[in-house]
Formats: sequence, structure tokens, C-alpha cells
Amino acid sequence: MRLSEGVEAAVHSAIVLAELPAGATLPGAALAEYHGISGSYLLKHLKDLVAAQILESLPGPAGGYRLARKADKISLLDIVLAIEGPQPAFRCNEIRQKGPGALEPAAYKRPCGINTAMLKAEQAYRAVLAETKLSSLIEDYARRADPRAVAFSCAFLEQNQRLPR
Amino acid sequence: MRLSEGVEAAVHSAIVLAELPAGATLPGAALAEYHGISGSYLLKHLKDLVAAQILESLPGPAGGYRLARKADKISLLDIVLAIEGPQPAFRCNEIRQKGPGALEPAAYKRPCGINTAMLKAEQAYRAVLAETKLSSLIEDYARRADPRAVAFSCAFLEQNQRLPR
Repeated sequence: MRLSEGVEAAVHSAIVLAELPAGATLPGAALAEYHGISGSYLLKHLKDLVAAQILESLPGPAGGYRLARKADKISLLDIVLAIEGPQPAFRCNEIRQKGPGALEPAAYKRPCGINTAMLKAEQAYRAVLAETKLSSLIEDYARRADPRAVAFSCAFLEQNQRLPR
Repeated sequence: MRLSEGVEAAVHSAIVLAELPAGATLPGAALAEYHGISGSYLLKHLKDLVAAQILESLPGPAGGYRLARKADKISLLDIVLAIEGPQPAFRCNEIRQKGPGALEPAAYKRPCGINTAMLKAEQAYRAVLAETKLSSLIEDYARRADPRAVAFSCAFLEQNQRLPR
């Protein structure tokens, strides 16, 4: 079982955008360059984040991406669901309704106990992701980041951000 | 993010095998027939369960599969890991060490905060799976199963099981 690599790129990108001054945007190409990844690869994931209203995309020469809401209102679960889609990891194919021993469909009033148990585990997974906000990841990072990395980020944003007119 | 369909087949198969009398086995072909699935498809997953010491496989004319340990000693986590492998869903590719702002590798003493958060969620997921034993799934099922389904299962096992000589 594997989360798409886009989740990693999406979280990192959202964290960079969280550092923009109010109203500013960052072009997708700059985000890709910052992370050393392909622009077209990242673009797909940025689109998913826009569709999920995690990011906004402004068109035109002053355009680019920015957070659509504050970093403390964006959780890891928001981002994972935006990239991966809403379905749980376990998809019940109703094996119990196949094979020679299967009864009529109406006999299966309640979900399969296996499905119920797998969904309970998924809920626990999603609950931890839901309580982890972008803002807390940023705070943790700020507390222990190498000052050279911080300096690079600030300079990169200043050079590449686009400010509203 | 999606668990392999083999997880569903594996759990169902283990539950059927839990109902065998002591020492008896069930051939893989019978397990596949019971669930209305392909034998060669199921065989791969049964092999994974044997490798993980969840099932035993006995060769020969009296051969087949049976649980390698009691149903209360087998958890959903055991089965998921046997089918999916041990790696977590989130694989950190160290994006933070790529791109123009990357520092020397020695600068990255601690894991990325994103990876830490994703692993914490995975731990919560696995903890729920670990506490769900095959025996409790069987008990829940026994309490509410349609008697016709139970009767079919018993008859199927009697007809297809192989008893030790």
C-alpha cells in the first residue's frame, strides 16, 4: 500500500506558500525549481490542491499559487485527500456475496465485519492526519531548521514571488 | 492509496481455515471455489500468508492449508503486512534534500517533520489493525450470521477438508 509521491510534493509546496507575504503568489515553475522536481509533474498536484480549495491559482503575469486559507486551517488529511481522492485504502468487493455459498443480496443487511474493522483503522489514520495542521509543521520546522536553509527560502521567495499591484 | 485486493481474499480465507477441526487442512482450490475467485490469484496470497507464518501448507494428497497459530494470535495487521509488505504508505523521498536550497547531507540529522507526522498516522492505523484479531471477527460473525450461510460453510468444509491420517 503506497501513498502517491505527489503527497510529499504537495505538502512541501503548501508549506513554502505559507511563507508568502499577504496577497503574494508563487509561480508553479518556481515551486518546482525550489524542490528540484519536474514542473509538469508538480502542476498536476497543484491543480488537485486548487480543486480542493487548499490553494488558489491566479492567472496572468502577476499570477501563481498561494494558500486559499490560513495554514492552521489546512491539515495533512486535507492534502492527502486532495491528492489521493476520498476513497478508503480498503475497498470491500463483497467477497462474501460471491461463490457457491452466497445468499440473496437482501440477506446482507450490515456491512461485512472485515470492512467495518478496516474502516475503523482508516478512521484512526485520518484522525491523526486531520489534527496535524500545516501551521504546526511550520512551527516545528522553524524551531530546528538550519539557518542557512531558512535564509535560502526567504531569498528564493523574495526573488520569485509575485506581488499584487 | 489502495490496499491490494489480496488483503480481502486473505482475511476471508484465514477465517474459513479457522473453522477447520484440529489438524485438518483445506486445499487452495477449495478455498478459491468457496470464495468464487481464481485459484492462481489466491495461491499467491496464500503463499504470502505461509511465508508470514500465519498459515501452514502441507504437501501431498492429504495436503492443503490451515492456520499456523490460533485465531486469537492472528491480527488484521499480521495479514495486511503479509500481503502488502512492511513499508509504510508514505515513503519519504527527502524532497528537502533536493533542489537548489539543499544543504550537505550531514545537516539533516532528524527526519523530516512531514515524514514524522505521516508515520505517526500510520502507527495509529496499524495499532487498530493489530488489536483486531481473527477470533473477534469470527465471534462477531457467528453472532449475526444467517444460519443458511453457516450451514453452507460447515457442509463445504466437511466435504472438502482433508484430515490427518
